[in-house]
Amino acid sequence: MPRAMDAFEYRDGALTCEGVLLSDIADAVGTPVYVYSHRTLIEHLERLRAAFALQATDPLICFSVKSLPNVEILKRLVAHGAGLDIVSGGELHRARLAGVDPARCVYAGVGKTDDEISAALRAGIGLFNIESEAEFENLASLASRERKIARAALRINPDVDPRTHRYTTTGKRETKFGVDLDRARAFFRAADGVESVRLTGLHLHIGSPVYDPAPYREAVTRTVSLMDAIESDHRGRIFETLDVGGGFGADYETGQSPALAEYAEAIAAPLRSRTAAGLRLILEPGRMIAANAGVLLVRVVYTKQSGERQFVICDAGMNALLRPALYSAFHFIWPAEVAPAFVPPRRGRDVDLPGLVLCDVVGPLCESGDFLGEARRLPPVARGDLLAVHAAGAYGMSMANRYNSSPLPAEVLVRDGEATLIRSRESFADLTAHERAAVLDGVGARDPVPAGERS
Amino acid sequence: MPRAMDAFEYRDGALTCEGVLLSDIADAVGTPVYVYSHRTLIEHLERLRAAFALQATDPLICFSVKSLPNVEILKRLVAHGAGLDIVSGGELHRARLAGVDPARCVYAGVGKTDDEISAALRAGIGLFNIESEAEFENLASLASRERKIARAALRINPDVDPRTHRYTTTGKRETKFGVDLDRARAFFRAADGVESVRLTGLHLHIGSPVYDPAPYREAVTRTVSLMDAIESDHRGRIFETLDVGGGFGADYETGQSPALAEYAEAIAAPLRSRTAAGLRLILEPGRMIAANAGVLLVRVVYTKQSGERQFVICDAGMNALLRPALYSAFHFIWPAEVAPAFVPPRRGRDVDLPGLVLCDVVGPLCESGDFLGEARRLPPVARGDLLAVHAAGAYGMSMANRYNSSPLPAEVLVRDGEATLIRSRESFADLTAHERAAVLDGVGARDPVPAGERS
Repeated sequence: MPRAMDAFEYRDGALTCEGVLLSDIADAVGTPVYVYSHRTLIEHLERLRAAFALQATDPLICFSVKSLPNVEILKRLVAHGAGLDIVSGGELHRARLAGVDPARCVYAGVGKTDDEISAALRAGIGLFNIESEAEFENLASLASRERKIARAALRINPDVDPRTHRYTTTGKRETKFGVDLDRARAFFRAADGVESVRLTGLHLHIGSPVYDPAPYREAVTRTVSLMDAIESDHRGRIFETLDVGGGFGADYETGQSPALAEYAEAIAAPLRSRTAAGLRLILEPGRMIAANAGVLLVRVVYTKQSGERQFVICDAGMNALLRPALYSAFHFIWPAEVAPAFVPPRRGRDVDLPGLVLCDVVGPLCESGDFLGEARRLPPVARGDLLAVHAAGAYGMSMANRYNSSPLPAEVLVRDGEATLIRSRESFADLTAHERAAVLDGVGARDPVPAGERS
Repeated sequence: MPRAMDAFEYRDGALTCEGVLLSDIADAVGTPVYVYSHRTLIEHLERLRAAFALQATDPLICFSVKSLPNVEILKRLVAHGAGLDIVSGGELHRARLAGVDPARCVYAGVGKTDDEISAALRAGIGLFNIESEAEFENLASLASRERKIARAALRINPDVDPRTHRYTTTGKRETKFGVDLDRARAFFRAADGVESVRLTGLHLHIGSPVYDPAPYREAVTRTVSLMDAIESDHRGRIFETLDVGGGFGADYETGQSPALAEYAEAIAAPLRSRTAAGLRLILEPGRMIAANAGVLLVRVVYTKQSGERQFVICDAGMNALLRPALYSAFHFIWPAEVAPAFVPPRRGRDVDLPGLVLCDVVGPLCESGDFLGEARRLPPVARGDLLAVHAAGAYGMSMANRYNSSPLPAEVLVRDGEATLIRSRESFADLTAHERAAVLDGVGARDPVPAGERS
């Protein structure tokens, strides 16, 4: 029986997370603040595992650090059996602080620098996802220098269309990611005989969020054919791993995502004979685990009527949550405390109740792109009210910025009625802490500067 | 006679800033790094002042902190006579560190919180730009509590179309900013008799960047009519200030901007009798001063052919410079060291030379929106090459983010052949410095959590 999609629910008109009033958290730490539900995070992880177990498949689930990188969150997911999907040296640093077994980490990304690769080799990262020939050669040479043998998977573009935003479409032929299927066979021929890299897997990632399981089935089916072809090219080569990436949907609106069982079936069915023979499946979920596990709380600073529109001006906008401005993303927004008649029956664009007011929910920044939600029907709101921006756990804090010299928000994790500050709010002093003038010795004009050009 | 638009120029095939090789700076501090030219900043400030002097107008030029907020930059502009345009408490903090006379600062923004307003009152900020009736009432009440008399200007929407990106169009009727002309008259009637706020000016800001002086003339002309009307409504009221905002263009492509004399004439001419009678004109330039004063230096990590496209994968992308992804903004990109045949004759989309290669210049982040320039013709580039992303001084570093756990870039200021680090690069440890778990005392479940729901 399906449970609620997350642990954020109204009780007596007040939004709660695992029994804690969100207004209490806002009072204690101020706004803007991200609040996460531990139960939701862990349940999503466990439901994903269970959905694949029904397919007799036991994937290594590597949580996508970029979706929600707070170390305290990572620790708790790792404690519940997650590996980590990292994409940078900064995320390797986070993975270490989280105490994950590095063998249960995959390292992806199109621009891995030499320093990053060397650090990942020394850390013993389990699998490098390789995006290009140039990167493979570089990995081989760095592994050789570090006297390590790297395990690697080649990222391929199965050229399926996930029908999502063009900025997050990543598995079509013309993106910067991976290599196409024809080129993959040549790649494996060239990789034969390289001793410092064991190219034992394939990797794909078709995009995010993907609400239709069909592109996964299509992509995996194409990949299996490719595996067959490569194995027939190379006597004795057997693929050990297939990393199908992430991109599974989240419920930005109630009931938006298909059941996890559908994703699991679409992915596991074409692989059944291979997983039965020992192929290790790897998943890289981020949004599916984290999005509905977090809300962003903001406070209304002013309301303002402007022509036909009511503007609800909040104390954070695109600085705290970039997704509406960058991707035209929808996040359900609702006051954290409402009269009983205004408890929302579900979350969605089309929620309508008597007495709602048409609003633009905007941030304080000095540009028109700074909005959280346009043309929303909300209960009447007033200065001082607290608003919850839902499904903000993934790609919320991780994309936050300091535009207009806004300190980064605080983060709070709620578990079983207890609230823990897991990231303190930045101070104004934090904004400028790195701004000290220091003359760079040894860097200077090669030619004397003409006196007339001095400033 | 027009000078070069900035101090970044090729000498013997190597890009320099005030005589310093950019490659030396990259070698010294690594990449990504923002490099600014002191001479360009100051020249732009002085040219703007000179253009208005030709119109017999001596405006207070308040540099827009949000465009380039580094304190070391602000100090130098202030030393050359600039005031500051701030929009938040964080920017007030920066203004203080820059040592500006607070009376020469204007404070704008649609979401000023009580704490921010109170701090600005105590600091003695010269002018509050008021965006709504609710904000005016709030300012009056806070000023009263602080026993201060605030000087304020009402922001109006002159409803002219600046023909720029919808995200940076800010003076049309339906944005969150200001009040429309009809409402302004009522506003002033209501403001009469409020003792803690002296409403002595008007403020407008039509958008940014605006390459055509005509909308300024139109907006100022409408504003003068409004001033006449309000003064006739209120016997004895004389406007003391008019803040026409900023939004003046920058040369993202060579020769893109009109001469400053054209903006100055468009703004000053309709005001001539008022400025002659003592009206103080205020300007809030940001982009026009800072954009061409900065470049972003990135290094090529890999190149990759993918179908018809060559991808040039750099060590920074939308994390360091968000404008291409967010606004589809054009930034001229070129290698910092080239053969003589490849020294670019100018900067522009259509620069063509024999031997150029069609490229997408992208960052290392895991999404397709992470690009710096799409479909560019560049000289052949290779792994390790340094690229300069031009006209990145404004809204570059100020919008930078840590997505994919990317440390924020370093910033360097060059002056007369000397390079000074003015912001050190973030470390990995900086990314996680605020992530410590601390239970929030006094915040807890109002109802006991049922055992079955514990996680």
